[in-house]
Amino acid sequence: MAKVNIGDKLSLIHELWTPKVIAEMNDYQFKLVKLQGEFVWHNHVDTDEVFIVVKGSMCIEMEHETVTLSEGEMYVVPKGVMHKPYATDECHVMLVEPRGVVNTGEEEGNFTAENDVWV
Amino acid sequence: MAKVNIGDKLSLIHELWTPKVIAEMNDYQFKLVKLQGEFVWHNHVDTDEVFIVVKGSMCIEMEHETVTLSEGEMYVVPKGVMHKPYATDECHVMLVEPRGVVNTGEEEGNFTAENDVWV
Repeated sequence: MAKVNIGDKLSLIHELWTPKVIAEMNDYQFKLVKLQGEFVWHNHVDTDEVFIVVKGSMCIEMEHETVTLSEGEMYVVPKGVMHKPYATDECHVMLVEPRGVVNTGEEEGNFTAENDVWV
Repeated sequence: MAKVNIGDKLSLIHELWTPKVIAEMNDYQFKLVKLQGEFVWHNHVDTDEVFIVVKGSMCIEMEHETVTLSEGEMYVVPKGVMHKPYATDECHVMLVEPRGVVNTGEEEGNFTAENDVWV
């Protein structure tokens, strides 16, 4: 495979809330996504989900706490935990999770996106 | 779990080539390591290995190519591929791989480090 330049890949993303797969490791995928506004409440019943903020800041609202992440910060949403990501200003995030995870978990709707694979 | 500030964790690492586990997702670990100089040739027979450069630059020498990674670039060393990381100047890297992977693969020696878990 070729090396991946994270900034270059981000410059190719023109839509919000549409994760693009930029690398694969075993059966896991590294995705980049641009966020702004509020996402839907959802969970992933079979897996933890990693958020790493590359640029900007975002929040992850959960039942008992809300975590605010700035550039250079990461958080692991545990398997099964309901969460709602949101960002006041545009935020760029790397996600890490198993291949096949749907961005909205069980809550399919307008925000449900294909996992476009750019590897 | 608490959020993780990558820069804060790096500031606590005072030795080269000693990965520290800063987050866990399912059975995978996110580690930070500071590199300078040459590592040993080794491979990981059961898993791919992800390198993400957080600061500085490094090279990964393999049999048929050498990849140079700068800040904001990543590379996946495929399972089984012999590789030798090296860096002229100090470089800060995030590694992602399954729990239990040894930094030197099968080549245990002076560089073999415990996976200190800071989660």
